[in-house]
Amino acid sequence: MSASGGPVERATLEDLAAASRILVDQGVFDAAGHVSMRHPTHPERFLMSRSLAPEMITADDIMEFDLDCEAIDPRGRNGFIERYLHGEIFRARPDVAAIAHSHSPSVIAFGLSNTPMRAMYHNAAFLAAGVPVFDIRDKFGKTDIVVSTKEKGAALAQVLADKPVALLRAHGMVAVGPSLPVAVFRAIFTVASAHIQHQALALGGPLAALDAEEGALADVVNVQTVGRAWDLWKRRVMK
Amino acid sequence: MSASGGPVERATLEDLAAASRILVDQGVFDAAGHVSMRHPTHPERFLMSRSLAPEMITADDIMEFDLDCEAIDPRGRNGFIERYLHGEIFRARPDVAAIAHSHSPSVIAFGLSNTPMRAMYHNAAFLAAGVPVFDIRDKFGKTDIVVSTKEKGAALAQVLADKPVALLRAHGMVAVGPSLPVAVFRAIFTVASAHIQHQALALGGPLAALDAEEGALADVVNVQTVGRAWDLWKRRVMK
Amino acid sequence: MSASGGPVERATLEDLAAASRILVDQGVFDAAGHVSMRHPTHPERFLMSRSLAPEMITADDIMEFDLDCEAIDPRGRNGFIERYLHGEIFRARPDVAAIAHSHSPSVIAFGLSNTPMRAMYHNAAFLAAGVPVFDIRDKFGKTDIVVSTKEKGAALAQVLADKPVALLRAHGMVAVGPSLPVAVFRAIFTVASAHIQHQALALGGPLAALDAEEGALADVVNVQTVGRAWDLWKRRVMK
Amino acid sequence: MSASGGPVERATLEDLAAASRILVDQGVFDAAGHVSMRHPTHPERFLMSRSLAPEMITADDIMEFDLDCEAIDPRGRNGFIERYLHGEIFRARPDVAAIAHSHSPSVIAFGLSNTPMRAMYHNAAFLAAGVPVFDIRDKFGKTDIVVSTKEKGAALAQVLADKPVALLRAHGMVAVGPSLPVAVFRAIFTVASAHIQHQALALGGPLAALDAEEGALADVVNVQTVGRAWDLWKRRVMK
Repeated sequence: MSASGGPVERATLEDLAAASRILVDQGVFDAAGHVSMRHPTHPERFLMSRSLAPEMITADDIMEFDLDCEAIDPRGRNGFIERYLHGEIFRARPDVAAIAHSHSPSVIAFGLSNTPMRAMYHNAAFLAAGVPVFDIRDKFGKTDIVVSTKEKGAALAQVLADKPVALLRAHGMVAVGPSLPVAVFRAIFTVASAHIQHQALALGGPLAALDAEEGALADVVNVQTVGRAWDLWKRRVMK
Repeated sequence: MSASGGPVERATLEDLAAASRILVDQGVFDAAGHVSMRHPTHPERFLMSRSLAPEMITADDIMEFDLDCEAIDPRGRNGFIERYLHGEIFRARPDVAAIAHSHSPSVIAFGLSNTPMRAMYHNAAFLAAGVPVFDIRDKFGKTDIVVSTKEKGAALAQVLADKPVALLRAHGMVAVGPSLPVAVFRAIFTVASAHIQHQALALGGPLAALDAEEGALADVVNVQTVGRAWDLWKRRVMK
Repeated sequence: MSASGGPVERATLEDLAAASRILVDQGVFDAAGHVSMRHPTHPERFLMSRSLAPEMITADDIMEFDLDCEAIDPRGRNGFIERYLHGEIFRARPDVAAIAHSHSPSVIAFGLSNTPMRAMYHNAAFLAAGVPVFDIRDKFGKTDIVVSTKEKGAALAQVLADKPVALLRAHGMVAVGPSLPVAVFRAIFTVASAHIQHQALALGGPLAALDAEEGALADVVNVQTVGRAWDLWKRRVMK
Repeated sequence: MSASGGPVERATLEDLAAASRILVDQGVFDAAGHVSMRHPTHPERFLMSRSLAPEMITADDIMEFDLDCEAIDPRGRNGFIERYLHGEIFRARPDVAAIAHSHSPSVIAFGLSNTPMRAMYHNAAFLAAGVPVFDIRDKFGKTDIVVSTKEKGAALAQVLADKPVALLRAHGMVAVGPSLPVAVFRAIFTVASAHIQHQALALGGPLAALDAEEGALADVVNVQTVGRAWDLWKRRVMK
């Protein structure tokens, strides 16, 4: 068994638990969905709730894992089976500090079709970098769709590459970021942008979406101002 | 009058009543909709609320019926007129332990058109087996649409055949399962999948829906993990 | 000034006030919308709230009008300017006991296009009789759209003819019924059916909507069972 | 530093703060969005919250700015970076007393396509005057989309011209009015009309939208009766 990455402040655990409840409150998670963060002082460890509906998660449910997704100190708690999705992205992407994985309907629609997601507005500027689709069939044939092994997690991480968001065919999406608030922000505005894109495509004609250069510029503002939204979102679920 | 199938634990009656309120809370039921379960110890009996808006149902409203849909001990309570939909499915499908019937708008749209419902994601994997449509006109001509007799219930059960879900033209849907939580889960994710399919179809092009083999594999996971969602849903309506 | 139609029971006034709040709670009314009922004992009088947002209406806000839409005992209260819509329908339709008028988005879309509304399911069976569209331009040219005179109210009543629902171009809808709960029920399920029709039309191909005969049969059930829904709706706004 | 325009009544500050919370409650604002009003007694000054999520704004957060968007008495508070959008419209439009700026998804879709917004019903009558689209690329090339300078604010004001509403490509919308309640009303019903237009366009065929003459007539009624809606909206957020 790996050693712990060291103690984590209570406030950090509370933020990670709040992130799950925020994503429910904001309509990104339903009865499922999970969010994780890299250990603040040990990059080979990450923190993630035990297997539980995200609306019910509190700081006491947070577990520590190594990058092989082995629990450091399980004390009888079970991790989500899809923790391999998180572990392999943390392994492949040193720049990533947090990951959210959801089954948001508006986003899933894009994962089922050949229409790529694009950045409909400044809040979703990070999508302008491109949104790849992971189809588990490509490497694993007929499966139960669950990202339940290191191999499947690594294949997803490979498709994600250096992007902030990837879709999972017939499954959902994953959003990553350099901090917990940014990953949560990206999950929320990926869903919002998907809604807009459905409506905008129905209007017909070309879409004046953000291009890669505008997207890169606008996302700097998102990252700088994320605290204002985070404070509000957190306040709503702390009531 | 048939004899009772025997006493039922209070917790079971409370779960069945909660299922009605859960389906309201999750947006599947409106002012109508009903859910039933087979008697836990007597397969020729089933349990179902008296005729009441589902949001208002408590354990005390649960009645017992035989498979001819006669109330065992009515004590002045009236059953739903559509209990024949339930009784005949319980008769035809020994594998079914619970049934939910709703009038969910997104699902009704598919029952009115020639576009078949498909499984848009893992949570709706059970739809990959195919979703037949019951058109009451086929056997009964012009009617008031209500499944109000044994003959109509049996005709619906015949169309449902061995599937988990069937649509009723210009009326709604029925979802069945091997347990109460699974039937509720299937009703909820049939509606969710319908939402996604509307959006995905609007994007145009082929849909990479789950095929039958993927659906069968993924539904095993749904059935195994349904308790996590059920606990959350129940907690929400027990507040 | 006309004489009063006589005293009205407090419970009746409370039901009429509740109807306004029900239509807000059910998403049919927004900050506007009005519902009226014929005086229970004097068919030449009707009851309707003073001009007020429907969410705020209580029994004390209900006023009495004659069919010329003159207030019987205004006591400084102002009626809605669109009370003429109500008065003229009550005059033209002795079978009508209650009227609801709303600006529901999904319904307005049909009033702007050439696509007729149809009955998508049993709860909206009354739409199978046909849904005429009143275009105020036809008789009055360029106006402010408001049904603000007896002449405009009468023109609308003429278009409504013997139907339960009519649309008003670029404005909204009116639903009528033989009782207050039935008029409220029809307003609610006109909106629900509009939602379904938008989705079903997007699927393409012919729609297996209810035909006139099925609609007539199914609406008998709606009228018979409306009390179950009414009790729930009222309970929700009486909290 | 400019001199203050003079003291402002507490009730006015509370109304402006309430306007932000109203626009959240009505679904126009999310975690962002801002509303401003001209100083009641000094037309060269305007009032606007410090940078804060709109749901959290109270009267104590309101700051005073001159038309160059310099804070009169910042006391350590930071204004929104997009206050230049407000300042330049107040400068260009003496008739404008209040401005709301949002990122409402249904509206953004129109800003991305070539389909102009039109007035779908009487409550959105002000749209019949035409809804221009501001594309920041036209004058400024690739940017971060933010209206963060006087030049960008002035360019937007030029596109808005004498209209009540303009869209901002890949960003949002701005609604202005001769009073705070009217600007708020216009923001709310621009979103509502966008919803209807999406649905009406999907039905196909020509749309019988309000023309300019009908729009002008109907908007007079909106302005006259806005108090009824404003009172309701305010009451909801004062709870």
